[in-house]
Amino acid sequence: MADEVVLLDTWASMFGMRVRIALAEKSVKYELKEENLRDKSPLLLQMNPVHKKIPVLIHNGKPICESAIIVQYIDEVWNHNPPLMPSDPYERAQARFWVDYIDKKVYDTWRKMWLSSGEEHETWKKELISIFKQLEETLGDKPFYGGETFGFADVGLIPFYSWFYTFETYGNFKMEAECPKLMVWAKRCMERETVSKTLPDEKKVYAYIVEIKKALESK
Amino acid sequence: MADEVVLLDTWASMFGMRVRIALAEKSVKYELKEENLRDKSPLLLQMNPVHKKIPVLIHNGKPICESAIIVQYIDEVWNHNPPLMPSDPYERAQARFWVDYIDKKVYDTWRKMWLSSGEEHETWKKELISIFKQLEETLGDKPFYGGETFGFADVGLIPFYSWFYTFETYGNFKMEAECPKLMVWAKRCMERETVSKTLPDEKKVYAYIVEIKKALESK
Repeated sequence: MADEVVLLDTWASMFGMRVRIALAEKSVKYELKEENLRDKSPLLLQMNPVHKKIPVLIHNGKPICESAIIVQYIDEVWNHNPPLMPSDPYERAQARFWVDYIDKKVYDTWRKMWLSSGEEHETWKKELISIFKQLEETLGDKPFYGGETFGFADVGLIPFYSWFYTFETYGNFKMEAECPKLMVWAKRCMERETVSKTLPDEKKVYAYIVEIKKALESK
Repeated sequence: MADEVVLLDTWASMFGMRVRIALAEKSVKYELKEENLRDKSPLLLQMNPVHKKIPVLIHNGKPICESAIIVQYIDEVWNHNPPLMPSDPYERAQARFWVDYIDKKVYDTWRKMWLSSGEEHETWKKELISIFKQLEETLGDKPFYGGETFGFADVGLIPFYSWFYTFETYGNFKMEAECPKLMVWAKRCMERETVSKTLPDEKKVYAYIVEIKKALESK
């Protein structure tokens, strides 16, 4: 029996992009079901009853939730292609640590900056920049987070690149000025088709976020 | 060269207990360095500069941080003893999902209940109970989360058992009445020496938390 692989996702989600990059890295064919987060499908509610969030990977009828967990699952199941996880346990722990750091810090801080104003906005902006500076420092002079090859931590972070323009525009700063080495890394990742074909246009992401903010403010 | 294993921890931490249970399961000898969280050691700040939190496992001089990541590391490095992680990738994803659920939900909800009063307190109390009911439902009729053997998700949850008395006393509810099957599971876990020798006395935990609350209120 051929594998049946379905992805419940929404195009602008950086967490969904992680899964799409991992599936592309492993050359896995799948059916993409675009979700409307304001009117979630019965399938999404059935497949992720606990968090009710995308992305959900449904593999032969069985759901896997939470993007970092899905990417590890993909890496373990489709292990014919080069692994995304480092082979050394210590390196693996480091990759997991940094993806966990991204999960705990980036989206929440961005959201707080986005939805605040004045001094509070400035505080969250500084915090957001400091998070990216930390991630830049962690990368150091390596081509990728795991060293010479594109791997788990790269998959964890690169989707946010398609949101940088949105972060910059709402925050009034430039990633190029703040984190030049991280930008070089991002462009290096974008040389991979698995990444460049997955990430949406940054202006499209921005227009979408502007619309969401308008909708929030008109409530 | 023999392995040099050091654990930076504090006795009442459920996250630290996870690591101590995993080390005991693997019969790993280690030096325990008790941290004072109000006056963190230079070693802790050096080994976990990002989060500055315990537990930190230092293996031959190299730090591993975040309890769920440390437990996976221990399972991967000391792989002579029975694995804590299921061998099937789907089961592994499920175990990771539930530990992630515990990490996202239990401690934060407990803290909000603990530090609030009136209606807010009641809301968080209901939420805390509903989290444990979800965890009880997930267990179902299995002896352990992974099935027949004690594993990763059990290690992730069982340390909270030593805090149940504290949760119950501050929340004015009884886990035995709310989640009887979860209590049977907890007692089953406590039959393992690796667990029963690690978990502190529930009354000692409670006395410690009462002291912390007094200190917070006198500020």
